[in-house]
Amino acid sequence: MTKNSRFRPKEGGRDGGRDSGRDRPAGAPWKAKGPRPPREDKPTDGSMWIYGTHAVLAALANPKRKVLELRATRNTLEGLEDTQIDKSKIALTDGESLSALLPPGAVHQGIAVRVHPLESIGLDQALPNADGIALILDQVTDPQNIGAIFRSAAAFGVRAIIQQDRKAPPITGSLAKAAVGGIEMVPDVRVVNIAQTIVQLAEDGWMTVGLSGEAEHDLADVLDGSPVVLVMGAEGKGLRHLVGERCDRLARIPINPQMESLNVSAASAISLYAAHIAQTKKR
Amino acid sequence: MTKNSRFRPKEGGRDGGRDSGRDRPAGAPWKAKGPRPPREDKPTDGSMWIYGTHAVLAALANPKRKVLELRATRNTLEGLEDTQIDKSKIALTDGESLSALLPPGAVHQGIAVRVHPLESIGLDQALPNADGIALILDQVTDPQNIGAIFRSAAAFGVRAIIQQDRKAPPITGSLAKAAVGGIEMVPDVRVVNIAQTIVQLAEDGWMTVGLSGEAEHDLADVLDGSPVVLVMGAEGKGLRHLVGERCDRLARIPINPQMESLNVSAASAISLYAAHIAQTKKR
Repeated sequence: MTKNSRFRPKEGGRDGGRDSGRDRPAGAPWKAKGPRPPREDKPTDGSMWIYGTHAVLAALANPKRKVLELRATRNTLEGLEDTQIDKSKIALTDGESLSALLPPGAVHQGIAVRVHPLESIGLDQALPNADGIALILDQVTDPQNIGAIFRSAAAFGVRAIIQQDRKAPPITGSLAKAAVGGIEMVPDVRVVNIAQTIVQLAEDGWMTVGLSGEAEHDLADVLDGSPVVLVMGAEGKGLRHLVGERCDRLARIPINPQMESLNVSAASAISLYAAHIAQTKKR
Repeated sequence: MTKNSRFRPKEGGRDGGRDSGRDRPAGAPWKAKGPRPPREDKPTDGSMWIYGTHAVLAALANPKRKVLELRATRNTLEGLEDTQIDKSKIALTDGESLSALLPPGAVHQGIAVRVHPLESIGLDQALPNADGIALILDQVTDPQNIGAIFRSAAAFGVRAIIQQDRKAPPITGSLAKAAVGGIEMVPDVRVVNIAQTIVQLAEDGWMTVGLSGEAEHDLADVLDGSPVVLVMGAEGKGLRHLVGERCDRLARIPINPQMESLNVSAASAISLYAAHIAQTKKR
């Protein structure tokens, strides 16, 4: 059912008419005039840099992370007095040197760790039974949005985030930064086919709910406290037709008709909250 | 919502300890090596460029906007056949020339409009009576977060967003882009003192609810469907103590204790949804 190929970097068109509601996606290549300066932020051994205090501390706290090296400035290190980090393992550095390792503009807060990607995890392994909340992202592509969604998902104890293998961006440092540790807590499951996955999860006992601005029913009326898989469509395009058809129910967030849509990370946060409230009430 | 107990990053230095969960804030200067190329994105007459299809169309649809000039690529223009734009007023341009007018990395989608800022609006004018939902941002500083909050606020028909005059960033093109038209719909009210404003709004008949991760009660239990002012604290710092004290109630979003906080724009989206649901139920 699941095929996992981790971290295949994809270089897409830059503007391509997409509207993520943000400027340059942090995962996208920086279009500078002239040659790009050499950088070390794409290690060739498959490892990656995670940076920013929260993201780094969460990576270090995750027993499944293989940590290769840890670099920090003296200033940042002093702010981490109360944490459990083994400081003898930190290579002291300065802000400029750290910046040179990372994507341009990376807000590293004086700390970065080089790690191996987490081992891939299959659908059956991540969701052996129907319980709680799971989240499917149907071709959401913006790494900042996906990172923000991992953060909200971790906050609501989501059991897995499921994405289409070929269409989802890899987990990068900037996605990890936006997730503020969320990628260490919520399994990242990649599947070949979203529509088939929805059918399988329904057979496993999950209620599958697709979020769509055109749905007839409000989200709060559809959620009944059952174990639920929320299916979010991409920015701009929304849920694909076939994917929507496979869901048990379609539901809308009741927004003002003068606004076309919510940002997908805002819509995800609201949907997770609503599902959490519905399940709490039922207990 | 966002109080940080585990560590306290040192202030100062390039990254300043801030953690917005994002890389370079789009409003912040681009740190390039060498001299910065001259740009025209900061007109000296107080006007500003708004870019991106949705943001531009919303600005053009706003009768209160004074439009100075409109530039678009032929390609984008062809995609706007169905809209009400007076195409005779558009100066045709190309993507490169448009990029040169805008902040580096701006995803302009082939269209930009130069406008005067909207006229400022006072608290009494924006909120003459207690009805619906209003939102206070207590020293939230990230323009991307604030733009995203304007988008969600417009979606839930928020009557005004209130910020502290000296502490809130100006409305820029990148904030407007993140707002996807929301800044044209939700009045942007600047006040001198947030704590005093909360007291005044309470006297006017609003219930004032401060969001705090340390609050005793859940948001859904606190909201009773009354006209409500939601007060959101800054990323990292959370609600200031004095501001929290002035609120009628403090409330928390029930998140997993393993995550310290939600992003302020996710927390705002959830709070607006919860307030909307509570008011709908009461009707």
